Amino acid sequence: MGLTGPVLVVGTGLLGTSIALAARRAGLDVLLSDVSPEHLRTASGLGAGRPVADGDAPQLVVVATPPDHLGVAIAEALTRYDAVVTDVGSVKSAPLREVSERVGAEALERYVGSHPMAGSERSGPLAASAALFEARPWAVTPHPSSDPGAVELVSALASACGATVVTLPPEEHDRAVARTSHLPHLLAVLVAGRLADAPAAHLSLSGQGVRDVTRVAGSDPALWQQIVASNAPAVLELLSEVRAELDAMITAVSGGSREGLGVLLDRGVAGTQAIPGKHGGPVRATAPVFVSLPDHPGELARLFADAGVIGVNIEDVRIDHDPGRDTGLVELVVAEDSALHLAASLEDRGWVVHG
Amino acid sequence: MGLTGPVLVVGTGLLGTSIALAARRAGLDVLLSDVSPEHLRTASGLGAGRPVADGDAPQLVVVATPPDHLGVAIAEALTRYDAVVTDVGSVKSAPLREVSERVGAEALERYVGSHPMAGSERSGPLAASAALFEARPWAVTPHPSSDPGAVELVSALASACGATVVTLPPEEHDRAVARTSHLPHLLAVLVAGRLADAPAAHLSLSGQGVRDVTRVAGSDPALWQQIVASNAPAVLELLSEVRAELDAMITAVSGGSREGLGVLLDRGVAGTQAIPGKHGGPVRATAPVFVSLPDHPGELARLFADAGVIGVNIEDVRIDHDPGRDTGLVELVVAEDSALHLAASLEDRGWVVHG
Repeated sequence: MGLTGPVLVVGTGLLGTSIALAARRAGLDVLLSDVSPEHLRTASGLGAGRPVADGDAPQLVVVATPPDHLGVAIAEALTRYDAVVTDVGSVKSAPLREVSERVGAEALERYVGSHPMAGSERSGPLAASAALFEARPWAVTPHPSSDPGAVELVSALASACGATVVTLPPEEHDRAVARTSHLPHLLAVLVAGRLADAPAAHLSLSGQGVRDVTRVAGSDPALWQQIVASNAPAVLELLSEVRAELDAMITAVSGGSREGLGVLLDRGVAGTQAIPGKHGGPVRATAPVFVSLPDHPGELARLFADAGVIGVNIEDVRIDHDPGRDTGLVELVVAEDSALHLAASLEDRGWVVHG
Repeated sequence: MGLTGPVLVVGTGLLGTSIALAARRAGLDVLLSDVSPEHLRTASGLGAGRPVADGDAPQLVVVATPPDHLGVAIAEALTRYDAVVTDVGSVKSAPLREVSERVGAEALERYVGSHPMAGSERSGPLAASAALFEARPWAVTPHPSSDPGAVELVSALASACGATVVTLPPEEHDRAVARTSHLPHLLAVLVAGRLADAPAAHLSLSGQGVRDVTRVAGSDPALWQQIVASNAPAVLELLSEVRAELDAMITAVSGGSREGLGVLLDRGVAGTQAIPGKHGGPVRATAPVFVSLPDHPGELARLFADAGVIGVNIEDVRIDHDPGRDTGLVELVVAEDSALHLAASLEDRGWVVHG
């Protein structure tokens, strides 16, 4: 059973609208619904699809409502339409339990949960993008009685959105995101909490490290309340592991035990190395090349044109503007073994290269 | 007393060599020393300066040794040279205490601690860059008997390296970095530690959030053992605050108290908003514009050339390569009120813009 549409997206927030835009880009007919007429109007206006009407018969329904409403909304979709239904909630066991209490066995077969690992600190349809899922993991979480054709259809949607499908059972998914998403979020919140009433002089020493650690803590608290509540068992298991390690850390630091602290620090390094590369592959060694340039866009174009002629593939770029200066600093991230070649070749072409 | 050099850098690791390169760029004569002849040779070979010789009379000595050796190395420099001496260690009270036990009152006046808020997960002279300090804060931490001329000289070095000087007392500095650097580091270590023995299927769901939260935990554990040990009192105070909040978090999640969790999440949001903007100014609202392009460097140059003609200033750039595809995705970060204009103008010029 191929994905031919129409696809109905229920809930036109950041995720729902992004999926709708990506599905439209893939040539599918997209229907939209939302309890907020404003969100619905905005999403339609962005070209994400048209409001669903009586008589529409979607092939696939994507429920993208807030976590608290998932169970009810999924059951409603299964009852109203003879369609495959998925949702994009961050937690999978709790909604599945609710759905199985609300619908019969036949309808339950048409339900397959899923969870795209993409998001933003921003929310609402205006922050949506068809490119949000490009090269990101998208978990598809069949339950024992899910119809194989339904699983295929949901996987096809993820692929059509440019994502990489990862299939795993709902409970396994919830343990995985507790570890890779919910725990990092909650500890980032604790770090950020220590900054809330810090003196300005202390905060003026903030470097890139604390910005990176705390960034996710800026996300919508109402949404995260729901996510954490619906995955409480898996989250609590990890929080109590962390509590034991925090106690060990406090004991080591207060007792001056460098070995005790060393064990924890080494384990942290091992953890950072366990995370797979950006696209699931191994982590590639990269090195930065810093280049000064006058802070206007023409120079940036000239720099990239020169890098193109030199033939080194640029993996990432960071730009450091300082409003108080008239030169900017560009960091070109390239494969480690190309860095010296790029730096020397750019210098030959008259660029001021640092390092 | 102006900074005229020579500047002697003791310890040619990442920080020492970067300072030497920046001082050379500023036209200063730079002398180098290191217990490792190999590091010294590498740093000299990079153009960071020449090895110090008998009879050299530096105006300013910068001690950039590992934290454990700071006290001894600073005292030695104060005794051997009639020069102003600073260090670039991450903690300021402990070395000051050691130095004041080892040298007389006259020599102590010539010592002013400092701490550039810049670094890297990489280490050693080959990772050094003259641009490392550009637009970063650089703490200068005079003690009560520091000579004002010495304070000026150290501040002049920080400015010559392109950094923004933040002056504060040593104890205040240590409390500040415990909050903005050491605590974030230690909690990132606890999050990363949970990943060390996680199943591969769990890790395959890792998104940008967990990567950002844990990045700093990949830094050299031996260095961090020393940093944390030398700032133990300030670090312990914060760790026990976090322990109390973690207990509150566990109670809230296990008791199903959304209000209790909400208070903590709200405080986290407030903390992320308290961090000043990249260059000390207020945080500016930005928005991303996603553009597809064939994954070769010439297209990137063409994109920047077009953005230049459109006249929108690009604040940051992210490139998302997928080795399995022949198109790349570029995220241009611009001021929020320019995003729609940029997106529309790029589309007019034939670019595929998402969102």
